[in-house]
Amino acid sequence: MTAPTPWSPRGDTRMIEQGDAFQPLFDRDGLLPAIVCDAKTMKTLMFAWMNDEALRLTLSTGYAHFWSRSRGKIWLKGEESGNRLSVRAARTDCDQDVLLLEVDVEGDAVACHTGARSCFYRELDLAVAPVRLKR
Amino acid sequence: MTAPTPWSPRGDTRMIEQGDAFQPLFDRDGLLPAIVCDAKTMKTLMFAWMNDEALRLTLSTGYAHFWSRSRGKIWLKGEESGNRLSVRAARTDCDQDVLLLEVDVEGDAVACHTGARSCFYRELDLAVAPVRLKR
Repeated sequence: MTAPTPWSPRGDTRMIEQGDAFQPLFDRDGLLPAIVCDAKTMKTLMFAWMNDEALRLTLSTGYAHFWSRSRGKIWLKGEESGNRLSVRAARTDCDQDVLLLEVDVEGDAVACHTGARSCFYRELDLAVAPVRLKR
Repeated sequence: MTAPTPWSPRGDTRMIEQGDAFQPLFDRDGLLPAIVCDAKTMKTLMFAWMNDEALRLTLSTGYAHFWSRSRGKIWLKGEESGNRLSVRAARTDCDQDVLLLEVDVEGDAVACHTGARSCFYRELDLAVAPVRLKR
């Protein structure tokens, strides 16, 4: 037996923007963009995609799950590294087509597969052309 | 005469993850996801998409431009409201397929078209099923 869907079907614009029902919109590939930020500093840590199942697992376990587009499978972030993302709060935007997770990073507090704390470890140097990246 | 492209062609994985050349990857629709956060608080304000032209305009003017998927056109955020997004810093992620803009919001300091400061004005209440949204 399948558990009932933990969110609601899409409503009209007023309901989506002002309502209190969670009515997420998945794109044509069945994916929802998810931004992950640090619950303490609010700094952006990473960006990934969730399908229906990844969202259900995230909501039911409290740990961020994503859909890996490259591997074509569900992915419990930190399953191997131990750097799991414990969800302290989740938000959606006005259009309910993006998710924002506020998390505590477990283990080494590393969110990026490169070993960096955040995936956004490089800043664009806009003073040069073509643009360079600096750490 | 067209200005030269202000970024570089994609390199190999090592160059993309560790290099100092900006090599953004646009998706099959020619779009790059862009996260916008407040340069002072680091709080996430909104999420939108850039095509090649929107990215060029953002880099050259210092104001965030996006591609409106619903209207099918370039969009200078805040053009009508005056709440333009002045880019203080821009970052990319390990895969260089996402952009993070740190901005000052001009005008009324409102980033969302609903009048909210941030598009993420509702939090998911995970204690109930189906999930509800609270402000």
